[in-house]
Amino acid sequence: MTDTLHGAAEFDLIARIRARVANRDDVVLGIGDDAALLQVPVGQHLVVAMDTLNAGVHFPEDTAPADIGWKALAVNLSDLAAMGAEPAWCTLSLSMPQSDAGWVDGFLDGFLELAAQRRVSLVGGDTTRGPLSISVTVHGLVAPGRALRRDGARVGDDVWVSGTLGDAGAALQQWRDGAPRDAFLRQRLDRPTPRIALGLALADVANACIDISDGLLADVAHVCRASGVGVSLRVGDLPASPALRATFDEDARRALQAGGGDDYELCFTAPGELRDEVQRLAAQADTAVTRIGTVIEGQGVQAVDADGAVWNASRAGYEHFG
Amino acid sequence: MTDTLHGAAEFDLIARIRARVANRDDVVLGIGDDAALLQVPVGQHLVVAMDTLNAGVHFPEDTAPADIGWKALAVNLSDLAAMGAEPAWCTLSLSMPQSDAGWVDGFLDGFLELAAQRRVSLVGGDTTRGPLSISVTVHGLVAPGRALRRDGARVGDDVWVSGTLGDAGAALQQWRDGAPRDAFLRQRLDRPTPRIALGLALADVANACIDISDGLLADVAHVCRASGVGVSLRVGDLPASPALRATFDEDARRALQAGGGDDYELCFTAPGELRDEVQRLAAQADTAVTRIGTVIEGQGVQAVDADGAVWNASRAGYEHFG
Repeated sequence: MTDTLHGAAEFDLIARIRARVANRDDVVLGIGDDAALLQVPVGQHLVVAMDTLNAGVHFPEDTAPADIGWKALAVNLSDLAAMGAEPAWCTLSLSMPQSDAGWVDGFLDGFLELAAQRRVSLVGGDTTRGPLSISVTVHGLVAPGRALRRDGARVGDDVWVSGTLGDAGAALQQWRDGAPRDAFLRQRLDRPTPRIALGLALADVANACIDISDGLLADVAHVCRASGVGVSLRVGDLPASPALRATFDEDARRALQAGGGDDYELCFTAPGELRDEVQRLAAQADTAVTRIGTVIEGQGVQAVDADGAVWNASRAGYEHFG
Repeated sequence: MTDTLHGAAEFDLIARIRARVANRDDVVLGIGDDAALLQVPVGQHLVVAMDTLNAGVHFPEDTAPADIGWKALAVNLSDLAAMGAEPAWCTLSLSMPQSDAGWVDGFLDGFLELAAQRRVSLVGGDTTRGPLSISVTVHGLVAPGRALRRDGARVGDDVWVSGTLGDAGAALQQWRDGAPRDAFLRQRLDRPTPRIALGLALADVANACIDISDGLLADVAHVCRASGVGVSLRVGDLPASPALRATFDEDARRALQAGGGDDYELCFTAPGELRDEVQRLAAQADTAVTRIGTVIEGQGVQAVDADGAVWNASRAGYEHFG
């Protein structure tokens, strides 16, 4: 781990991070050298994802440091969940305008809380001077042939989604409007839950999987392109939280559910004959899942109302914060 | 690989990157899913390093995109070289103010030129909106027990350095002063050479190794701390390029050699009885190496003149660009 912030406080920063990190047994060498040394178990594929959060783009500037820390790791773990991988290690590159130990302490509170929950070791990275930006690379493990991919959806598959949709987008909307911010919705925006247990449970049943970061319609479209299929979604079946129902009318709610980003739920497809098995595995993983559509021939995503009419999704494109 | 830049050009950007990438045989799944799937050979440790370059901090804003691309990968490969690891894969997170296909093409020219030279596959990452910033994570391989670390230096070891010192710092100085920029020095700043072959060759002889990113004195101090030893450096023996000799007087030159960052040479220690073997292995790796000091008892780095007097290193602290 290298540190190129200015001043005497710099080296304290690395020491500060290192002192709080717990290493797994498979970390041969963690923070403190030019690179980390890690032991990948025989018979496992390495799974690698990397995502960056920039201040003012991926989170409002007034987000608490601990929430930024949580989210920076969560969005990466969500990618591993979508592959059906077990998380193992991560590296962190933190750019900040000046060395600010208090901010870093808060950031680590959130980052390391999630890391400890999911048994992920922080093994390296760097700290640099620059506009506030957090890059994380996560490493996970999956048995060969058991990874969930985007390209396996088959015509006739059910389309499923975990949890509820639109909550994070709703929180962002309230923030934009200067409206009172619902605590549940805000938690969903600031502290997304990576659906790791569900991803692991789906290996035997799902044909394709993706996590919802850009918005349901946009992400399902990725699956369609990769799998060479179309998807018909039933807008009326999209799961909504009580908080979302209480704060937005039906039109606004549907737009948020179909188009809002940052939910980090898993969307997956599975054969219709495995419906009961999907429900059983999801219950074991302690994660609610809802059937929201069907894989069809053709290409692209079609959203239909309860009466079968095509739903106007014009309001449902993903918008970034800021 | 996910892309969260705005507009229709976004998806072209990922497609643009993907179209130019060559995958190694051990890449099971590269760019285009939630994460990459990689095959780590049995009996090898995974080596992971992550470094970020920010515009205006790590490179002047007027640096050519191809040079930024080269350097973003090179500084990471240098970390693998310092561990004695063989590079394998990398991920890239690119933040830019707006989607600019021409800039990305130039960036990829440099990035992928170096990746092809060193047989590194770009397997994932993301593109996001934000101030210009490039994070790279590199993955390498090393046999257990053969990694070069910072903590193995022993009293009596020779201290060696590869290549020449101070060239990159000199180029930065010329840029800062608005002086005519020497082409060789500028190349050393913009296109550092990761000393991979040398790192691989040193496994059997070196006791400790680090790459020089922050400046010789600062980086040798890291080795001293990690190994619990001191180092005495002979300032007069530090290797200088003809270009550096031609453009800076002795005082300025020594300050740049001892304190200038961004050289990305390897500094390593090895037992005195292996001097000839070190020279032989370095010649095989086609890399010049120079003995510049000795590991001593105590702590910290002492720099001495040819007459044994302590050299005043006050001018030699590392300064970032900007």
